[in-house]
Amino acid sequence: MRFNKVLDGIKTYEAGKPIELVVREYGIKPTDVVKLASNENPIGTSPKVTQAIIDNATKAHLYPDDSMFELKDALSKRFDVNSDQIIIGAGSDQVLEFISRALLDEDSTILTSAVTFAMYDIYAKQMGATIIKTPSYEHKVDEFVELYNKHKPKIVYICTPNNPTGDATSKEDVFKIIDAVDSDTLVVVDGAYMEYASSKDGRYLITPKDILEYENVIYLGTFSKAYGLGGMRVGYGIANSALISQLYKLRPPFNISTLSLAAAIAACGDEEFVQESIKLHFEQITRYEEFAKANNIEYIDSYTNFITYIFADTQNSSHIASELLQKGVIVRDLASYGMNAIRITVGTAKQNDRLFEELAKVL
Amino acid sequence: MRFNKVLDGIKTYEAGKPIELVVREYGIKPTDVVKLASNENPIGTSPKVTQAIIDNATKAHLYPDDSMFELKDALSKRFDVNSDQIIIGAGSDQVLEFISRALLDEDSTILTSAVTFAMYDIYAKQMGATIIKTPSYEHKVDEFVELYNKHKPKIVYICTPNNPTGDATSKEDVFKIIDAVDSDTLVVVDGAYMEYASSKDGRYLITPKDILEYENVIYLGTFSKAYGLGGMRVGYGIANSALISQLYKLRPPFNISTLSLAAAIAACGDEEFVQESIKLHFEQITRYEEFAKANNIEYIDSYTNFITYIFADTQNSSHIASELLQKGVIVRDLASYGMNAIRITVGTAKQNDRLFEELAKVL
Repeated sequence: MRFNKVLDGIKTYEAGKPIELVVREYGIKPTDVVKLASNENPIGTSPKVTQAIIDNATKAHLYPDDSMFELKDALSKRFDVNSDQIIIGAGSDQVLEFISRALLDEDSTILTSAVTFAMYDIYAKQMGATIIKTPSYEHKVDEFVELYNKHKPKIVYICTPNNPTGDATSKEDVFKIIDAVDSDTLVVVDGAYMEYASSKDGRYLITPKDILEYENVIYLGTFSKAYGLGGMRVGYGIANSALISQLYKLRPPFNISTLSLAAAIAACGDEEFVQESIKLHFEQITRYEEFAKANNIEYIDSYTNFITYIFADTQNSSHIASELLQKGVIVRDLASYGMNAIRITVGTAKQNDRLFEELAKVL
Repeated sequence: MRFNKVLDGIKTYEAGKPIELVVREYGIKPTDVVKLASNENPIGTSPKVTQAIIDNATKAHLYPDDSMFELKDALSKRFDVNSDQIIIGAGSDQVLEFISRALLDEDSTILTSAVTFAMYDIYAKQMGATIIKTPSYEHKVDEFVELYNKHKPKIVYICTPNNPTGDATSKEDVFKIIDAVDSDTLVVVDGAYMEYASSKDGRYLITPKDILEYENVIYLGTFSKAYGLGGMRVGYGIANSALISQLYKLRPPFNISTLSLAAAIAACGDEEFVQESIKLHFEQITRYEEFAKANNIEYIDSYTNFITYIFADTQNSSHIASELLQKGVIVRDLASYGMNAIRITVGTAKQNDRLFEELAKVL
């Protein structure tokens, strides 16, 4: 069979190793594995979400409300937008997929920073599009404007705060990029970790409402991080209704499971859990900064729930990640992003103790 | 912004109305609504699945094992195939999406029966492909072979048993179609309702193993129907590993939620629930046949968990479905498929009592 030729250029994406795999591969007891690789919420699942799941555990045979009325209603109130300005995806990943498929083809390009969320590239490659990257991993206005003018990309991605680096772009700079782009280019403002950045410094807060007046900007958010629903796959895109209705054409029916929908609705009403997550995070991240300084490791000032350690040339991030993995501590090696660095999710005090203990041995 | 032009031809799909919507729109008490529209399992969620969901209710923050090792292992044992011959989708729908995106473009065609599962067309339209349909809703070998030879479609869809009509194609006929097609055309054998057909008549049983020797055939199955997981969105495709590895390139990471994965693993080991579902079904479907005969309604002999009533010209299916809806009984009108018919999920004895009571008033 002849498959579409874009498939030739695609390598299958390998996600972060789950605990089960480490247990299988290295024979480590599940309770001895510490996973700080996927930016999952270290305080776990909110009790309100757990209760909503239990309350709906006998409804697995029933399709969800495909209009997602209640979830959209909750989001529209939280962000002061209309329901028809919202699209729900199986993670914000799926909204990224809709965007790529709605806009890209083999003649188009996308523009991203040098190191950013992997799915932008993956979905662009699925459409055969060309990927242009700025020289810096940070979203520098001058670099974005210069490359925008040169390549006129169909989509510009601004991941703020940025994953997997942890830095953020100020609201002022984000709007400088938006204002430099004409209306035939879509600007994606991916705020998956926004709750952490805005808690650290208000100048980094961008809300969906801020971008609504632009016909060519979409804001993405997720329940996977501060809201603690990584495993449930629920994210959203918010933009003007004309843009949202185009993306809706590519949304498969029932793209969110019955239990994911119930979990997200419960999470929406649980601001307390988010605040608790953020409080723990800021208590613990200072320990990572101190550990780095004490061990002469360079780190990127983090606006997210993880921190990125950059190693000197005398050390090798892949080796370090592999050594940690064999001891049951899972972190994310950034070698595949061209960085001699590892990304570590800031965990609970106990998880972080273990990370520091094992990392100190490996350095 | 200029969206890809294939979007112009797409209308947003409207899924069956959930109970919540009927409650909202018609002010009917949720307990008074009987939904027989979406072929959900009428005996509900298996207790084993409910327990698995409860056991995993505190793990919503954790990404699932993206290799889906345990689920694939269970499926490989059930069907006597290898794990690398399996791809898991968010419903078999998502595997259909991967297939369309891997093979179709604006120059290609697909071939289906006149009335069949709506997603084949929807995903083909998303790729700009042309849709060819046989004259009959049944999968007639002669019609398929003639149109195959005329159009050389890239994909031939055989939905057996067929949805939304309920008829089935014998194994013998399915292989006549497969054998008439050359290796540059993919044949999709969609067995979403296979458990019902094979229980009714062994000549309709097609297993994944049956098609594995063909490089250009894929079998699709789902947990949504006999296994009672409609709301969890888990289906699968089984084919030779070369074909599966191509589809994998389009699979987004974590396409199944943590709880959906746990539910599907539990469902895999629950053959008893499937047998109970099938037993209830065959007890109840005879009542639908008797009701039809008593009321001079034509029906299609069903190999699925639903039955299709075809009305005479003096009656209008949309009117009947609408009247039922206002009384809180939800069925699927097939007018949009070009049939003056309704599709009714065979429910519990009590649900069916209610359907007969209300339908008798409306006729």
